[in-house]
Parts: sequence; structure tokens; C-alpha cells
Amino acid sequence: MTRAEFRRIEDYMLDRMKDSAHDRRHVYRVLNTALDIAAGMDTVEMDVLLAACLLHDIGREQQSANLELDHAQIGGEMAYQFLLTWQWPEAKARHVRDCIVTHRYRGSNPPRSIEAKILFDADKLDASGALGIARTLIYEGQVGEPLYILDEGNSIITEGGGAEISSFFQEYHFKLKKVYDSFYTDRAREIARERQKTAIDFYDGLYAEVDENYQKGREWLNELLL
Amino acid sequence: MTRAEFRRIEDYMLDRMKDSAHDRRHVYRVLNTALDIAAGMDTVEMDVLLAACLLHDIGREQQSANLELDHAQIGGEMAYQFLLTWQWPEAKARHVRDCIVTHRYRGSNPPRSIEAKILFDADKLDASGALGIARTLIYEGQVGEPLYILDEGNSIITEGGGAEISSFFQEYHFKLKKVYDSFYTDRAREIARERQKTAIDFYDGLYAEVDENYQKGREWLNELLL
Repeated sequence: MTRAEFRRIEDYMLDRMKDSAHDRRHVYRVLNTALDIAAGMDTVEMDVLLAACLLHDIGREQQSANLELDHAQIGGEMAYQFLLTWQWPEAKARHVRDCIVTHRYRGSNPPRSIEAKILFDADKLDASGALGIARTLIYEGQVGEPLYILDEGNSIITEGGGAEISSFFQEYHFKLKKVYDSFYTDRAREIARERQKTAIDFYDGLYAEVDENYQKGREWLNELLL
Repeated sequence: MTRAEFRRIEDYMLDRMKDSAHDRRHVYRVLNTALDIAAGMDTVEMDVLLAACLLHDIGREQQSANLELDHAQIGGEMAYQFLLTWQWPEAKARHVRDCIVTHRYRGSNPPRSIEAKILFDADKLDASGALGIARTLIYEGQVGEPLYILDEGNSIITEGGGAEISSFFQEYHFKLKKVYDSFYTDRAREIARERQKTAIDFYDGLYAEVDENYQKGREWLNELLL
């Protein structure tokens, strides 16, 4: 791919993700990670991978406006049409679409080509380690979710606890800690393992700080009040 | 203090902090921490400390509406008036006011009484360790600040970098990492030391993850594009 073509696809992406600096940064990290994973492989179609990485989240704004929509489906179709207008061969544009459609795989329709698997792994890796923790906390702030929810005994709820509202501790148990076993490529598993300890230590430390604070506080207050 | 009186002050606080679940949780942690610090001391006026902890941030909503206002000044005055209406002795209500006014000390007018110093330390401790990191990241999400800003060489800006916009990495260097040397009481220093390693390890890990991602990505992309 030429620098000019890369820039053209990049500009199309930036235009469709104007409103979220967070999502744009995520796109570049996914691109960088995908290049890392691909570096150890022989037969990756790099044009397809570059376009798929740059364009994988361009359907997000439409999904935000209508939560019934799937940004992977929408983004895949947008990318396909965009690449055809720039004279990409149909089969190559379709390949990019397939990568984008399966990058969010949670049941049926898994990523099949190596390019689709690399995009999937690179996207998932952004939920691992300190980055996964930081992105989740920033998200909690954006949507107004709390760090923790306490039960009536002042213990932190970490799992379940009703579907009405979620907390960082629930997100950690429901999503973040499960990321480490879900990769297709060896390099992705390796990067995830390198990052895992930071995430676990942070979670354990945060839990201990909050838990100790409430348990001790409750005891002292009970002794103090008449 | 009786349970009924505690509940009365608590209800007044909750009424004035309806809009921020985050700030309300912070208030209870500060209360719990203050009780921990006070537990090792002989001559703390516990009524004053309890009221000052519960009420220390009730001026936040007014400050949010007008950033020229200081929530410590406003909250101190609100607390003073509220306690007088419940027949607190004037000197005791004034003592609570003084604690609240100085809890945000950043130059002149430092906390003087032991109760004021305990409130100050308990409030600062909530910016230490994993809790400080988590609260800052949630705040970045609330106000739309990014995790990091890159310079033109794709290196993370950690300090300075113009006043227009700030990032998590700048907040860490400007505020979070300086918290550990600013306490009045030994017990606060001890708690802060216990928490410090978690914060440093998380910062170092996050920095390494993002930095490596961009440095490698840039190299690979440069090799790849024609």
C-alpha cells in the first residue's frame, strides 16, 4: 500500500469518528498491535489488514445513535462500499468487510481468515492489561457508572447483583479478566500474558483498598455512635 | 454523637449531593479513613470530625455551576449555618467550618486543629494508590479528557505540553504522584505508603503498553508503506 492510499483510508476513518478521541486512539493502537502480530507471519495480505484495522470501528457512531444496530455489520458494509469507489478489486474489498464483520464475534460467525483473526486479536488485546483497566474506567466515567456497588453489609458486589446498573468491579469480572483466554494467534497470547499481571495487581489492590476502608469504617462507626 | 444526629447530618449531605454518586462514595471513604486515622489518637473531638467529614464536599454543586467559587469556603459556611439551626454550640459549629474551609489547602490558610488535619489527610488519601488512579480515570471519562496525548514523534506527553488540554498521564505527574509526601499525620503516611506500589506499578505498566505499541507500530508502518 502506498502512503497516499493509507492516508486516504485514514482520512475516511477520521471523518467518521470525529466525535470520539478515545475511539480514534483505540483504532491506532489496534493497527499497531495488528502489525506486531503480523510481523511474525509469512502470508498475511497486508493491504487487507491495514484497511480492516483502520476501518473496523467506523460504524460506532450509528450504533451509538441506535443501540439495536451492530457497528461491526454496519462498518463492514461502509468499508466495502468505500473501497469499491476507489477501485479496489471486489474480492479484496469483500475480504476487508468480512474481517470487520467478525471482529466483534461473540457466538456465531467467527473470524476465519488470518487477517480477520489478527484484527480480532488486536482489538481484544486493547481490553487486556493496564490499557483494558484504563479504558473501562474512562468508559464508566463517560456513562456515569460507579466504581463499585455495595451490598447491605458494605461488601463490594463483584458479580451479578441485578442487571439495572453495573460497576467497574462487575465489568472486571464479567469481561476484563476473561480476555486472556480468547485469542487466535500465539503472539496475541504472548502480549496478553505480559500485560496480565499489571491488571490483576491493580484489581486486587483496588479491591483491598475499598474493602478495608468500608469494613474498618463500619466497625469504628458502630463503636462510636450512641 | 447519637445515631439519630449522625443520620440527620448524613441526610443533609445526601440532599446536597444528589447528582453525583461518585462524590457521595468519596464522602463515605473519607469518613471511614478519618476514623482510621483518629483511632490511634487520644484527644480528637469526634463530633466535630464526623460532621466535618460528612459535610466537607456539600459546596461542590455550587462550585460546578460557577467555577470561580471555592467549594471549601461555601461548604464550610453551609455546614456552619446548618449546625447552628440544630443548636450546636457556636464554637463547635465554627470548628467544623474551619475544618471544611482548610480541607482543600493549597497555599495559605493550612489546617490547624487535629480534626482539620485528619480531614485533610483523609481527603488526600482518596487520591493515593489504586483508588487515586481509578478516580482520576473516571474523571477523565466524565470531562472527556484523553488517556494520553502524543507529540509528533508518537511519544507520550507526560508533563507540560500546553495548558489547553490535559491527559491522564499529565494528571498523574502533576497531582497523583505528589500526594505521598503531603500528609500531616503518621497513620495517613502509613496508609499512603501501603498503597503507593500499586499506583506506581499501574502507571509504569500502562506507560510501557502504550509506548511500546506506538514505537513498534510506527516502525512497522514505515517499513510497510511504499
